[in-house]
Amino acid sequence: MVGLGRMGANMAERLVRGGHTVGGYDPGPAAREQAAARGIVPATSLAELVAALPAPRAVWLMVPAGQVVDATLAELLPLLSPGDTVIDGGNSNYKDTMRRAAELAGHGLHYVDSGTSGGVWGLKEGYSLMIGGEAAAVERLRPIFETLAPGADRGWGRVGPSGAGHFTKMVHNGIEYGLMQAYAEGFAIMGHKADFGLDLHQIAEIWRHGSVVRSWLLDLSSDALGKNPSLDGIAPYVEDSGEGRWTVAEAIDLNVSAPVITASLLERLRSRDKDSFADKLLAAMRNEFGGHAIRKE
Amino acid sequence: MVGLGRMGANMAERLVRGGHTVGGYDPGPAAREQAAARGIVPATSLAELVAALPAPRAVWLMVPAGQVVDATLAELLPLLSPGDTVIDGGNSNYKDTMRRAAELAGHGLHYVDSGTSGGVWGLKEGYSLMIGGEAAAVERLRPIFETLAPGADRGWGRVGPSGAGHFTKMVHNGIEYGLMQAYAEGFAIMGHKADFGLDLHQIAEIWRHGSVVRSWLLDLSSDALGKNPSLDGIAPYVEDSGEGRWTVAEAIDLNVSAPVITASLLERLRSRDKDSFADKLLAAMRNEFGGHAIRKE
Amino acid sequence: MVGLGRMGANMAERLVRGGHTVGGYDPGPAAREQAAARGIVPATSLAELVAALPAPRAVWLMVPAGQVVDATLAELLPLLSPGDTVIDGGNSNYKDTMRRAAELAGHGLHYVDSGTSGGVWGLKEGYSLMIGGEAAAVERLRPIFETLAPGADRGWGRVGPSGAGHFTKMVHNGIEYGLMQAYAEGFAIMGHKADFGLDLHQIAEIWRHGSVVRSWLLDLSSDALGKNPSLDGIAPYVEDSGEGRWTVAEAIDLNVSAPVITASLLERLRSRDKDSFADKLLAAMRNEFGGHAIRKE
Amino acid sequence: MVGLGRMGANMAERLVRGGHTVGGYDPGPAAREQAAARGIVPATSLAELVAALPAPRAVWLMVPAGQVVDATLAELLPLLSPGDTVIDGGNSNYKDTMRRAAELAGHGLHYVDSGTSGGVWGLKEGYSLMIGGEAAAVERLRPIFETLAPGADRGWGRVGPSGAGHFTKMVHNGIEYGLMQAYAEGFAIMGHKADFGLDLHQIAEIWRHGSVVRSWLLDLSSDALGKNPSLDGIAPYVEDSGEGRWTVAEAIDLNVSAPVITASLLERLRSRDKDSFADKLLAAMRNEFGGHAIRKE
Repeated sequence: MVGLGRMGANMAERLVRGGHTVGGYDPGPAAREQAAARGIVPATSLAELVAALPAPRAVWLMVPAGQVVDATLAELLPLLSPGDTVIDGGNSNYKDTMRRAAELAGHGLHYVDSGTSGGVWGLKEGYSLMIGGEAAAVERLRPIFETLAPGADRGWGRVGPSGAGHFTKMVHNGIEYGLMQAYAEGFAIMGHKADFGLDLHQIAEIWRHGSVVRSWLLDLSSDALGKNPSLDGIAPYVEDSGEGRWTVAEAIDLNVSAPVITASLLERLRSRDKDSFADKLLAAMRNEFGGHAIRKE
Repeated sequence: MVGLGRMGANMAERLVRGGHTVGGYDPGPAAREQAAARGIVPATSLAELVAALPAPRAVWLMVPAGQVVDATLAELLPLLSPGDTVIDGGNSNYKDTMRRAAELAGHGLHYVDSGTSGGVWGLKEGYSLMIGGEAAAVERLRPIFETLAPGADRGWGRVGPSGAGHFTKMVHNGIEYGLMQAYAEGFAIMGHKADFGLDLHQIAEIWRHGSVVRSWLLDLSSDALGKNPSLDGIAPYVEDSGEGRWTVAEAIDLNVSAPVITASLLERLRSRDKDSFADKLLAAMRNEFGGHAIRKE
Repeated sequence: MVGLGRMGANMAERLVRGGHTVGGYDPGPAAREQAAARGIVPATSLAELVAALPAPRAVWLMVPAGQVVDATLAELLPLLSPGDTVIDGGNSNYKDTMRRAAELAGHGLHYVDSGTSGGVWGLKEGYSLMIGGEAAAVERLRPIFETLAPGADRGWGRVGPSGAGHFTKMVHNGIEYGLMQAYAEGFAIMGHKADFGLDLHQIAEIWRHGSVVRSWLLDLSSDALGKNPSLDGIAPYVEDSGEGRWTVAEAIDLNVSAPVITASLLERLRSRDKDSFADKLLAAMRNEFGGHAIRKE
Repeated sequence: MVGLGRMGANMAERLVRGGHTVGGYDPGPAAREQAAARGIVPATSLAELVAALPAPRAVWLMVPAGQVVDATLAELLPLLSPGDTVIDGGNSNYKDTMRRAAELAGHGLHYVDSGTSGGVWGLKEGYSLMIGGEAAAVERLRPIFETLAPGADRGWGRVGPSGAGHFTKMVHNGIEYGLMQAYAEGFAIMGHKADFGLDLHQIAEIWRHGSVVRSWLLDLSSDALGKNPSLDGIAPYVEDSGEGRWTVAEAIDLNVSAPVITASLLERLRSRDKDSFADKLLAAMRNEFGGHAIRKE
């Protein structure tokens, strides 16, 4: 396991709990120390990690998408031998994955992409794994996937060639944006209906049992509303980590109209723009044509 | 139980299975016959139904929202006695519910609104019930709600005064539209990515276990995709039953921007407009300014 | 002219300039005084105004939509005689207009609705008038419309029966929202492209001549950007005056998907919600499933 | 002028009318013949065209964006001399323009991008030109721009360095999508209001004079509705030519929420999807949870 952050360390621990021997590398000494305490065999360098693995090796990357993946691969490449497999379990762009798979194939190496869902709960509940790559390379890793997933034959699968796993995970996250936004809007509407004095946590709990909208994200929303019913102190500021943008771009490339996933992304952008130039211009235009008053900042 | 259609008959049967004695009325003889076979005591008229109930009575309406509710109440009113309770379990507009509750209160009658979710699966899995009305009237019906819901203390609750139940159910359905649309878009994007040859049913199954997007609607989507992977023969035509429209209107009245719920509704309208005038005008404009060719119908 | 605010006084003055004799009433003495200075014959009461008019009378209302119109009509009704005409030139809801027309018809009075566009520039450039009502009643007012409009036979017309004028004006304003938002977004995108150092006023001026996007709203945008290129001091806060909401509701009632007009309205709502509950819940959910940090307020 | 299609030939003719001597090249003999009839000096090859120009040369490309531009530049490069200028007047992606400008600079050549708006009406009314490139190179072309634009000092300008012209034109087209969609929706709403029997052409004409929504696109809409009031025979199928997609992608890259421009693009995609998989899945889901009937295709 290369990268012992929140996701990487949890996944490694789940493998350890499942009976696998797992070596782990992270540039941070604290991360290595914590990993060791969780049963992962720490390595102080990639070279040390690779040297400790029996061939054919399986090296799982759980590092930030983008340049860190390329840099890690560049460092790994001379350490590996033909027949070894690298798995990218992060949120890489599927086009990068296709490029990297082709590059590694040129060195006789296998490259498997595993879109990984489950967040911080995956350690306990298992991860949902959408896997791309050559069938044989994926098959050889079966014991790993069976341990990481919620059940031996549930929650994981090879969905297609290299890139297909990350593509599927990208769409998964796009859907996730839409689901989250739908709940958020609904609770906001109820929160603004002051005369009914609705208890949003109670409603979430009712919905969790038997309703059409029951889901894991509703479970989490209920938990959040139970801990902090009016969400006090939480800024209305929503980050996005890239997959939503890619999903929107991909939908357009494929000529698929995806208004809800798109609107979910735009609302996140909007949440971070506290001084919207567009809104200022709208206010200025209204003043121009109708003499409507402008609010001063 | 007044109204022994799909929902009413199922709910009555769940009550029967739970040990309640349930009388049922429906204007259709076939519906009454089927209900009798399911353990419901059929009545051939509202008067007969009411006469068979011990006071204080509880009459549950499961009839189409709108004028049918008003007509049924008009017929029920002279048959009932002060202290009786009428429950509207359908998808009534919450403003109608508030009006009706006030009218019935003038006759010493209680009116309880129960937003009911669960669809055809509720018989087996229990219904999620969002209840509005006076606390004492709701409390008296506790045994009914405990049987209808998935668990004695789970899946139901009084969320506020008259109308609050139907308001909450309305928002529930608005959220449902958004969730459905998010999944639909995601699967459509994957379906259009021809080069990966993705198996949408397989992906839905993977996601059902451990992923962030797992939900009951995903379970159903997976079921639909398993039975008919390319959804052959299904027209791209999506009905709406009113609550989505009301949610959009209510959000605007409350000055809440709800782009995803709104976009979900608009897509349903769009799905039914096979000869969009707006699109024709766009094509005509493009021809006007740029000489771009117009497709002939 | 009943109501001598910005719109009413300007319209009355345009009529005066066009050779008409115009009486005017406003409850405010200052408004009456200013009107007198502009050639309008002021009246200190509705009764005085009506008494001064030769029968059959034409009384133009330019008062805020809603209850003020109803209150004014209630006061006017006993003062008028069969054959008189009342014109509502404001932004009334077309359904109210239809109701009022029926009521006045019961008293032998004509009711004409004139959707009025042009804003503060109408005095000089003329008003665009969308007129609803009986053809004969409208025809009798021809000299008024010919003077108010930009040209005798341009910029005005009877578009249909009572209500049709206000309906058309409502849609006009819905379109206006969409146009404004389109420009606002475009200028915002250019304003964020820091590396090109674009001069938004210069670009607006270029576009005003020969481009496909030239329009009167672009002229106004250019003016606003010329006076205040970075829109300093203008709060990103956009009011709406009702017609946009009605257009969205009407589109949905008519089963027409109008995503752009709808999105324009939602953005205005959004501009006024500085502490979005939905965004807070999104941030809380991200923390729940992924451990992502929450910004504190 | 390289490329004597609809736009190129018109622009060349406007230059000829303005007193310029203009050589033109097009691979099609018919296009060259027609150009000759319009006063353009035809060349049968790029080499012949370039040979006929006095140094420093100005070569205007009006060819389809993308690979044709690159291919044309590859052929032109060996024919040109340091100090010559190539102008790309088409709808190239601004990033391609920046790349090409850098490449040509390496050969001592100037590269100017001129975003060009005006469509088929530009010949008569002049073109709106948004120009990017080195200030001196642009200045040297001033006589050309002054002739192409609607007025010597109106309708054209250097907006920034290489790429800034095409960037500005890209946003212009994004706005255009939004404006068009706003009108299209408004007219569609009115067209569906059957009981008022509105005459859409009449309304467009009223609005053209004095209304807030007057614009050139409204003029064109009015023209289209006058010729074909119910738009009979026009398919509801709307092409897009790329700049809208780029605008949406650019807005997201710049973290600007642009819901209206985005919705306009999505509606165009939607107009071309007659068998929406998303809508089929929605219908299937409704059947799954509620037993709602599915329409058969």
